[in-house]
Amino acid sequence: MASGDVHAPERVARAYLSAVVLGPSRGVADFVAAEGPVAAADAIRRGTAPGGVLRRSEARAVLGGEARDLERIAALGGRLCIPEDDDWPSWPLLPLDAVESDNADHAPPLALWVRGSAPLGRLVDRSVAVVGTRACTGYGETVTAELADGLLGEGWTIVSGGAYGIDAVAHRAAVATGRPTVAVLAGGIDNPYPVGHARLFGAIADGAGVVISEYAPGVRPARHRFLARNRLLAALSAGVVVTEAGRRSGARNTVAWARRFGRPTMACPGPTTSAASVGCHHMIRSGEALLVTGAAEVISEVGAAPMIADTGPARPADVLPRPALMVYDAFNGHRRHDEQNLAFLSGLPAGEVRRALARLELESLVSRDDDGWYRVRNNSA
Amino acid sequence: MASGDVHAPERVARAYLSAVVLGPSRGVADFVAAEGPVAAADAIRRGTAPGGVLRRSEARAVLGGEARDLERIAALGGRLCIPEDDDWPSWPLLPLDAVESDNADHAPPLALWVRGSAPLGRLVDRSVAVVGTRACTGYGETVTAELADGLLGEGWTIVSGGAYGIDAVAHRAAVATGRPTVAVLAGGIDNPYPVGHARLFGAIADGAGVVISEYAPGVRPARHRFLARNRLLAALSAGVVVTEAGRRSGARNTVAWARRFGRPTMACPGPTTSAASVGCHHMIRSGEALLVTGAAEVISEVGAAPMIADTGPARPADVLPRPALMVYDAFNGHRRHDEQNLAFLSGLPAGEVRRALARLELESLVSRDDDGWYRVRNNSA
Repeated sequence: MASGDVHAPERVARAYLSAVVLGPSRGVADFVAAEGPVAAADAIRRGTAPGGVLRRSEARAVLGGEARDLERIAALGGRLCIPEDDDWPSWPLLPLDAVESDNADHAPPLALWVRGSAPLGRLVDRSVAVVGTRACTGYGETVTAELADGLLGEGWTIVSGGAYGIDAVAHRAAVATGRPTVAVLAGGIDNPYPVGHARLFGAIADGAGVVISEYAPGVRPARHRFLARNRLLAALSAGVVVTEAGRRSGARNTVAWARRFGRPTMACPGPTTSAASVGCHHMIRSGEALLVTGAAEVISEVGAAPMIADTGPARPADVLPRPALMVYDAFNGHRRHDEQNLAFLSGLPAGEVRRALARLELESLVSRDDDGWYRVRNNSA
Repeated sequence: MASGDVHAPERVARAYLSAVVLGPSRGVADFVAAEGPVAAADAIRRGTAPGGVLRRSEARAVLGGEARDLERIAALGGRLCIPEDDDWPSWPLLPLDAVESDNADHAPPLALWVRGSAPLGRLVDRSVAVVGTRACTGYGETVTAELADGLLGEGWTIVSGGAYGIDAVAHRAAVATGRPTVAVLAGGIDNPYPVGHARLFGAIADGAGVVISEYAPGVRPARHRFLARNRLLAALSAGVVVTEAGRRSGARNTVAWARRFGRPTMACPGPTTSAASVGCHHMIRSGEALLVTGAAEVISEVGAAPMIADTGPARPADVLPRPALMVYDAFNGHRRHDEQNLAFLSGLPAGEVRRALARLELESLVSRDDDGWYRVRNNSA
């Protein structure tokens, strides 16, 4: 779907879901994947969704402001990017579909509110998160600016959290040279936080970058939202670099997410005499992060890493849209399957399974005969 | 043997060997271990030693200055410490007895020339090597001084190479507070190198520390001697810390030796903008060294590590003098052995085997009956 289709029912439904659910929910994500966003939104609105889904959404289920939210963001030059859109970053977000985590935030976003016109999927196709302390030093500013500039110069997008300190230096390195950066916020994008960065966010969105959030317009940042936001920083980047971080920096949480996703995690060293480098040194010492001193070392890590947690060699299936991959993975060896069976195994609605099969057939990954669909042998997928 | 016994034949013989062989030699070390120093020195002097030993020593075999060397060093308040002495650091030097290395320098020193009255063995019983670049920065000086001071305060001896820069800062931290340090030189201890450190070396020897070298008086430092010296820095320390090192620092060679010995290797980070920290960052990145930021982190590494490469739990045998350990290890399971057989298996002369057996019997590690000597079962050695 082209993201310009503002009134598409899926978009309106996801705008509603975004405002009702407010942040990641494994149960709601699974329900939406199984029913599709329109049916899922209806079921929540009518109180007919499964109990777990209703409990997660009942506090705000009577909201009806989704049309107003979409208009409000459109007025800011923004939009709601949804999984059905062509520029949805399906591939980077794939690790959030893994269900084996105990972390309640380990779920994909239902949608992403976006300010700025750059296509999100392409923007994060080659991206590195550069994050760190708000209380940065002159040294940290220098290291961050040089690192970000080196990455941008090699065509990498800088992803960061829009905070004061290191995040701002990283974003500004991009803005200053007209290159792409993604600011991932922990509250509504209509409501800049910190407010002192209103102009920075405007410059990002008016330039080659975007300001994004999974939170609906008007939602204020809160501590748990920063933690949930950190998973998006990690998911939307091929790797995370912490350039300066004190003992209790939130950057460590972003690093933990990236490690969970199998993405490279890196930290810059600094003077041992600087409290602002204690967190970086701790992560390097403990093996949570690899020591890096410049862009070339970062690229040698992220350039080699696939964006999905699978550490094997790249497969054709790696470049498929998420639903196609889910259907492909639902095949059991080389046995024959019918569409209904694949819908059951993949957890996807029948229509989505049919679209996925068409794509997989186009890629010569599956084929069919009188007995049903089967995986094509002798390809490296 | 008390190290005060200046005219002991073993000491005179090893003074001769030290001057003739000039540095490590696996072949000579094995020959001396098998024959004893007096017989080995005689065989070299007379040209009856095995070919490999003669080739290594023939260039200087006619030297006869050992008595003069001993007097010269005695006049400086020094002595020649030999493996037969009570204060010989047998235990730390044990990894140099391992023969499985291709490195020609992988051999124990034949003797150590020592300036200063502190007992060498006790001095290095709890010691850490603190080394680094000669071209250090003010930051490197601060880090080194604080680290050394912290280690000294916890009762650790600082071992270093006596060079300008980091080494000197590390030694001075000890001298300034009357605490122990060991300077390991790459040339004769009568001939201070660098000459600008003549007073520093005097202060070390006059204080709680010692200045040592395996090279005879008058021998000048040379590149290969610095590399051989680095193996002693590593061997005489429970771990090595590099506080500041540029891209081509010799400290990396010391770290390589320590790794070969199974000792902890550590490096301090610094600003990524400083060329004087590039070597440290490289070693941390590659996993050659663990990042440390202060004395407590160093102690947590070296305090846990045994001084010998064996990474298993400490065994009674670990605290034995080297010949006793060699005899102990020569036993084949719990079979009976006679002394001649043990001499063959251990490569030690019969007299040494008898002394070793007496010690092992005292420790209840071996016993004998009518059929011969055997290892005692049911002890944790």
